[in-house]
Amino acid sequence: MSETVMSEERVKFVLDEPDIPTHWVNLMADLPGEAPPPLHPGTKQPAGPDDLTPIFPMGLILQEVSAEPEVEIPEPVREVYKLWRPTPLYRARRLERALDTPAHIYYKYEGGSPPGSHKPNTAVAQVYENAQAGIRKLATETGAGQWGSALAFACRLFGLECEVWMVGSSYDQKPYRRSMMEAWGATVHRSPSDVTESGRAQAEHTTGSLGIAISEAVEVAAQNPDTNYSLGSVLNHVLLHQTVIGQEALAQMAMAGEEPDVVIACVGGGSNFGGLTFPFLRRVLRGQAKTRFLAAEPAACPTLTRGVYAYDFGDTVGLTPLMPMYTLGHDFVPPPVHAGGLRYHGDSPLVCGLVKQGLVEPRAYRQNETFDAAVRFARAEGIIPAPEPAHAIRAVITEADAAREAGEERVILFGLCGHGNFDLSAYDAYLAGKLEDPEFSQADLDTALAHLPEAPALV
Amino acid sequence: MSETVMSEERVKFVLDEPDIPTHWVNLMADLPGEAPPPLHPGTKQPAGPDDLTPIFPMGLILQEVSAEPEVEIPEPVREVYKLWRPTPLYRARRLERALDTPAHIYYKYEGGSPPGSHKPNTAVAQVYENAQAGIRKLATETGAGQWGSALAFACRLFGLECEVWMVGSSYDQKPYRRSMMEAWGATVHRSPSDVTESGRAQAEHTTGSLGIAISEAVEVAAQNPDTNYSLGSVLNHVLLHQTVIGQEALAQMAMAGEEPDVVIACVGGGSNFGGLTFPFLRRVLRGQAKTRFLAAEPAACPTLTRGVYAYDFGDTVGLTPLMPMYTLGHDFVPPPVHAGGLRYHGDSPLVCGLVKQGLVEPRAYRQNETFDAAVRFARAEGIIPAPEPAHAIRAVITEADAAREAGEERVILFGLCGHGNFDLSAYDAYLAGKLEDPEFSQADLDTALAHLPEAPALV
Repeated sequence: MSETVMSEERVKFVLDEPDIPTHWVNLMADLPGEAPPPLHPGTKQPAGPDDLTPIFPMGLILQEVSAEPEVEIPEPVREVYKLWRPTPLYRARRLERALDTPAHIYYKYEGGSPPGSHKPNTAVAQVYENAQAGIRKLATETGAGQWGSALAFACRLFGLECEVWMVGSSYDQKPYRRSMMEAWGATVHRSPSDVTESGRAQAEHTTGSLGIAISEAVEVAAQNPDTNYSLGSVLNHVLLHQTVIGQEALAQMAMAGEEPDVVIACVGGGSNFGGLTFPFLRRVLRGQAKTRFLAAEPAACPTLTRGVYAYDFGDTVGLTPLMPMYTLGHDFVPPPVHAGGLRYHGDSPLVCGLVKQGLVEPRAYRQNETFDAAVRFARAEGIIPAPEPAHAIRAVITEADAAREAGEERVILFGLCGHGNFDLSAYDAYLAGKLEDPEFSQADLDTALAHLPEAPALV
Repeated sequence: MSETVMSEERVKFVLDEPDIPTHWVNLMADLPGEAPPPLHPGTKQPAGPDDLTPIFPMGLILQEVSAEPEVEIPEPVREVYKLWRPTPLYRARRLERALDTPAHIYYKYEGGSPPGSHKPNTAVAQVYENAQAGIRKLATETGAGQWGSALAFACRLFGLECEVWMVGSSYDQKPYRRSMMEAWGATVHRSPSDVTESGRAQAEHTTGSLGIAISEAVEVAAQNPDTNYSLGSVLNHVLLHQTVIGQEALAQMAMAGEEPDVVIACVGGGSNFGGLTFPFLRRVLRGQAKTRFLAAEPAACPTLTRGVYAYDFGDTVGLTPLMPMYTLGHDFVPPPVHAGGLRYHGDSPLVCGLVKQGLVEPRAYRQNETFDAAVRFARAEGIIPAPEPAHAIRAVITEADAAREAGEERVILFGLCGHGNFDLSAYDAYLAGKLEDPEFSQADLDTALAHLPEAPALV
């Protein structure tokens, strides 16, 4: 036995039910300067709350534009959070020993929720506001299925119907995610479907795309007064809801008696990253702490590291407002890496603004090096991570190596936003040496960037 | 919104890391009378510790025959338990409302462990004792994969090799469970394999069986001095290790300020049932409580409800000692229900003795009525249960209905021993109305019971 075991070593920092946060943290209130507004896709004028009412309830629109530093969590939402929150914070002592690092590594684990990721933190809040507004049904898209299953779960708890358009290739490859949504009572369509005009018009794209699936869900929401649309990331109110993660982590790091030197999370649309980091970032903005923040993304979809900071559409088809963000171009199609949740051409405007200001450092990693990191983590800590947070683990290992080289006891905190139980075929391919390690096409990127819509330049 | 939400309602009862039990509960010390001993399969004389040394380490053999009421948990085992223990106890308030019952329903959830079930509670303890004995590798069989993945996980944490023979049909149908074991570094064979004599001799049975897989693993363990065999249920020491579940549940029911009127768990080999109930049963045996205990099993494999109480082999081939238990006959092959963990012809001698004495009431349920219960639970509480604990949920609903009819506020506690993330194809079939609802064959049962080995009768 090579284990060094000390019984007094704390591994898990546990909060109790009353410790579930009572408010969400709205970082917008603490950001310096005026954020560039989203623009109406037709007029190119700033888009206001009224532009969003056909598909979002006013409760969420007000959260989207709120200037208050904190937003109270409705009691029925906190009640549902009790089903899996507070989530544990772990000290990764076995990983530290495996890496032979003096760094102290902590991770906040969101995979214990029924759908297996951080997504229900916002799904529940969104369904609640829609239920309050008298909405009967929510329509959404899903790629790999994490978001769709979280919304199906939340809709069931509040008695709303849920209709999901699932990207065709994922629908075929991940039947278990579809079954999970159906077990919670959702209706799942293979996209492109024949039940919408958008779907019928795109019928020749048989494998589907997130852009087509969004169009189908938005079409149904816009046409039916009792149906709204729901988005799983990118928007301010979605990141707001996820700040329960970082608030709990702040309390748990205090229990551990440590202050993180660096906080690390993966970024797709930004909700996992914002959820963990914003409560820590606010302390930096208020001069209460000095912390570095790393945003880990796939080298195959390098939005923050290789994109341009410009106004662009949030979807492929061009139906949404123009968003100020780092973008690879709305019609850029990244290669099919397994971290489906990170395959997005843009990112949350809030997160992009922080990168632009130098408060957040982006890092990009290849698929095989992230799976190498994931397997090292699984064999040390037990939990098999989803491919998305494996990008954060890759960054953690680099930071832990740097701490060893510097001979410093640095404190690292990262977000383990979901388990990999539905991604084991990717592990299978990796362990068999058959996992692809795709690069994006520079020519495709150049083409997509040439298609950016005309809009005011961002500084 | 039809929800009745009260913010003061406790949903989850949380223990802290120091509350992980320090001892396992050995019910044998409190059982009245002398338990019938296992018999050597050749001599039919009582089998002693020495008969087990070729495949088990002495540390586990001493636990198997211990007369002490409590056995101390080694500190390195408690250290590993910290990765997922203590596990939460939930009050199923949403299920209570959905069932419109005055009953108070509690469940102890073991699905948060990395392999997703209660199995690692004993896997870790078994691997530790083998590591202490200088064993380098463990061999085992697995059906649906829960046990194999728990042992793979535990072996990785203590640096042992793990070799698993997985029943051929499951190997083909559940590639994700195989990938999970491989992600933790185990070697997985499709059984019957060509690497053992037993496997080669059974090559024509291409779909395999648990009996063949056991023979392959035992053969490898018996032939290699540095390799031992590991079993995931049935034996006394396995049930002993699982009593961490019931001890935590006792403390959590005290936090809730309630005393269970009935405790319910599913039974396959008996380790989940024993783990939850034995700490409660000890209080009944000591006159400190009056509690009913229900053991839920599949009607397709009705060991406790339709079997005979007799000496029989633990495996199909007839290599193990004769065990005193309820049995359907060692060569009875139950129909392929999805609750693979409950498809065993016998049951733990300890649990069978309690049934024989009337302290535990067995109940049998059909496959479709258990999936109906599982879907009702998933839609109320969020967690999608594995097919095995769905049998317990079926029994819970019956008890909750009885409480409503009696107008009594009865307290029900049950064990939710694993999640159903790897069983969603079965949910798919159920929701599509295509799930089979098999009965066992009475003729097959009669034949199997005619094959019972000659041995002293049990009273």
